[in-house]
Amino acid sequence: MTKTITMNRIDLNGDLGESFGTWRMGDDDALLAQLSSANIACGFHAGDPEIMRHTVAQAMAHGVAIGAHVSLPDLQGFGRREMSVTPDEAHALTLYQIGALHAFTRAAGTRLTHVKPHGALYNMAARDAALADAIARAVHDFDPRLRLFGLAGSALIEAGKTLGLAVAAEAFVDRRYRADGSLQPRREADAVIEDMDQALAQALGIARDGVVHTADGQRVPLRADTLCLHGDGAHALQLARKLHKALEAAGLRIAAPDAA
Amino acid sequence: MTKTITMNRIDLNGDLGESFGTWRMGDDDALLAQLSSANIACGFHAGDPEIMRHTVAQAMAHGVAIGAHVSLPDLQGFGRREMSVTPDEAHALTLYQIGALHAFTRAAGTRLTHVKPHGALYNMAARDAALADAIARAVHDFDPRLRLFGLAGSALIEAGKTLGLAVAAEAFVDRRYRADGSLQPRREADAVIEDMDQALAQALGIARDGVVHTADGQRVPLRADTLCLHGDGAHALQLARKLHKALEAAGLRIAAPDAA
Amino acid sequence: MTKTITMNRIDLNGDLGESFGTWRMGDDDALLAQLSSANIACGFHAGDPEIMRHTVAQAMAHGVAIGAHVSLPDLQGFGRREMSVTPDEAHALTLYQIGALHAFTRAAGTRLTHVKPHGALYNMAARDAALADAIARAVHDFDPRLRLFGLAGSALIEAGKTLGLAVAAEAFVDRRYRADGSLQPRREADAVIEDMDQALAQALGIARDGVVHTADGQRVPLRADTLCLHGDGAHALQLARKLHKALEAAGLRIAAPDAA
Amino acid sequence: MTKTITMNRIDLNGDLGESFGTWRMGDDDALLAQLSSANIACGFHAGDPEIMRHTVAQAMAHGVAIGAHVSLPDLQGFGRREMSVTPDEAHALTLYQIGALHAFTRAAGTRLTHVKPHGALYNMAARDAALADAIARAVHDFDPRLRLFGLAGSALIEAGKTLGLAVAAEAFVDRRYRADGSLQPRREADAVIEDMDQALAQALGIARDGVVHTADGQRVPLRADTLCLHGDGAHALQLARKLHKALEAAGLRIAAPDAA
Repeated sequence: MTKTITMNRIDLNGDLGESFGTWRMGDDDALLAQLSSANIACGFHAGDPEIMRHTVAQAMAHGVAIGAHVSLPDLQGFGRREMSVTPDEAHALTLYQIGALHAFTRAAGTRLTHVKPHGALYNMAARDAALADAIARAVHDFDPRLRLFGLAGSALIEAGKTLGLAVAAEAFVDRRYRADGSLQPRREADAVIEDMDQALAQALGIARDGVVHTADGQRVPLRADTLCLHGDGAHALQLARKLHKALEAAGLRIAAPDAA
Repeated sequence: MTKTITMNRIDLNGDLGESFGTWRMGDDDALLAQLSSANIACGFHAGDPEIMRHTVAQAMAHGVAIGAHVSLPDLQGFGRREMSVTPDEAHALTLYQIGALHAFTRAAGTRLTHVKPHGALYNMAARDAALADAIARAVHDFDPRLRLFGLAGSALIEAGKTLGLAVAAEAFVDRRYRADGSLQPRREADAVIEDMDQALAQALGIARDGVVHTADGQRVPLRADTLCLHGDGAHALQLARKLHKALEAAGLRIAAPDAA
Repeated sequence: MTKTITMNRIDLNGDLGESFGTWRMGDDDALLAQLSSANIACGFHAGDPEIMRHTVAQAMAHGVAIGAHVSLPDLQGFGRREMSVTPDEAHALTLYQIGALHAFTRAAGTRLTHVKPHGALYNMAARDAALADAIARAVHDFDPRLRLFGLAGSALIEAGKTLGLAVAAEAFVDRRYRADGSLQPRREADAVIEDMDQALAQALGIARDGVVHTADGQRVPLRADTLCLHGDGAHALQLARKLHKALEAAGLRIAAPDAA
Repeated sequence: MTKTITMNRIDLNGDLGESFGTWRMGDDDALLAQLSSANIACGFHAGDPEIMRHTVAQAMAHGVAIGAHVSLPDLQGFGRREMSVTPDEAHALTLYQIGALHAFTRAAGTRLTHVKPHGALYNMAARDAALADAIARAVHDFDPRLRLFGLAGSALIEAGKTLGLAVAAEAFVDRRYRADGSLQPRREADAVIEDMDQALAQALGIARDGVVHTADGQRVPLRADTLCLHGDGAHALQLARKLHKALEAAGLRIAAPDAA
């Protein structure tokens, strides 16, 4: 992907299909309207077979690229609790979930485009090279044409590249970055950007200019292929809508990485 | 499939990969040596991602055809407790499990050949046309070249044929049949054939001659493409070995339905 | 319980603690304000340990009697799918769930007053005497002072009485009854009373007069100790509030069966 | 507990009821014959309601003290994978499991005597004071007369003492200790004592003399109230039997801490 292309287009991804059984979560249709890529839960942290089938159909109806949002097996904890899984376990559970979601895309006559680890698995794979490699190998073992989404600059992105996978480096609209390009930990004050205009400015900076500013104003280069949007709550949806509009107004094309 | 071919070959299928987590079940390697088709648990009644990956590798090493053994979601009850799932639910859970197992066959460089419902789902699909149709549609939606295994003469076999799927009618070596071709219910005395020689005779009768005899000696036509073998316990494995030998001695070729 | 007492008081029960993990369900505080008895989910169809602890505290704060809402093990199906459990299994899973909830009432310095089966288990226990007996025995085995809630006129109420348990016969405010005192099946038109005034009239008829009217106007005696209220949605909460008020206006005391 | 008593008696505890559904694990009856205390799985890492009921009955038949073996919620990983649960979550899941097992002891007319965390939760509670406190509080909240089992010298034992709980400091027969009294990590060579005579000698040293020897022969004081025995496999059972005999031959009384 050349520099010019990166600067002119950006992917907006969001987490979908996070209901479970009789419990509802998120306004998937409203969020899908702002996205170019949907990460669909595969039953390990959320979602169940019927919800997965339904969410695939919704994403298709919106023309949004479909990815598997693979997770540690922890419904009660929504996949947010770190678990000491081995690389072998991570490889197997990633394959399992990719396959489960793929069944619904195949049955629906569409295709799976990407894989993104969720929650604790995402964070663990960002810093643990062995785990990152296991996940990347699972993706590659299933289909080397799948794209691997991960935190920009993380071990997971490295692992994907090493295996020859296409990757999508992800950046966050409302998380504060440090001078070394890493995220400010959530336990610190100011870790989350609450102000919507600041979040929009950060998103534009990343998508258009490839830079982000630290809390104390330092300019840090940050190359990202995709930005993560949330759909839980009115505030999040409003930010998603504004961001979508602002990016287009800035002349950026919002499109999945593998869109024509 | 013409009559001649049916008379000359028979498939032997068995349930594999029924360990879970740290718990072991069955002697899969010993059973695989006698089989032509393996039905691998997909995590709903038994099996987990690591076990599925391992069992696919084992089946490949034995050159045995690999199928998805799809089940109701009931690990504690081993998929043997009937549950009132709707056809829509059955469709979705069948797709999910086929996809999950397919991921491991694909990663291993082999292919999925068939689907067989397990336990309570097998029994429910044998008599409930709507459920049978839902399962058959899930198989067809995933891949119309997959073969559907079901009880000979059941609603599931009918549903598969209606959709144009290849099917494999299954018969039981050690279950007593009634004059109408149905199985004598387990709650009745003599439902299970305990004597190994009688079981072998019944298997030969089915595989070679397409007939079975009722408890009171009536001769009933029974066309079957596959016989189910069990691997739990020394007795079951001994029966499997003897049966394999006896069928070959009778001039039958033991082969998966789609084997060349 | 003498007739006079029955006529002068009525229990209002509702299902509480039906969130799970990160998913929310119902407005428990709003519903609790209208209830005298709370049936708290025990982790099998809804609820988890943290939610159970929280819901016990909420019920205590409202001075509402606390019962265990025991269910088949089916989170995805919310305990609404019938499963063929044996009486032995039902006995064990009832004991397990009673114990789990009891731990939270004991830790909070209060006590468990009753047990009510949920969903499919409730319906199965209403008609299956062996299952009803197993559930009633589990309640009795844990504490013979616990009260068993069940459908008025059901096998479960009979089983409880036979064992010497105190029972609470439950009636429904918005379900149509038949001339034999049974509920009109949900699949029939008019099974549910949509009109709020009709529902209120039925509730008053049951609570004050011990009668209910069929769809074609027949007067049927129906003795009930408790009415079930729902808290999902604005309509349900409005009905709960109106019903509470109407019963008090009619001179009835709203109180748990074992309240002083 | 005075020194004299500690020197003259020792508890032998073992993990029981670790089957699940149709899967079997361990020879519980054989192991129970050697134990004075049984830690019974509560459905989170192993066990299910029927197995818990059965195991309580078995333990009663052997006159062995019954404790709740509480775990992280991870059946597939057998509770051996660390999970980042908060103290609040640990408190709630401990209470839940104590209550669930208590229901079966109460129904059986016996009582719960102790609580021991299992696997990863045991290890985490040994080193994490906040988690240890949460678990100890759950035990205390349920019943301050329950005894808390934990690794000798661990944060869990400290937390129990701080709350005024009776505790049982546990030592291991076949794990090598370091000079500071901690266990040699499993990843190190020589961490496990494979030789049965050496294991017996270590057990006697702990139980009779309150000392243990490091790999390089240093004598380290180690006060323990209970030794953990395993029942999986012929070797483990043989060690259990020999150990039981050797301790009695050395004049020690094998008894649960709260036995008369």
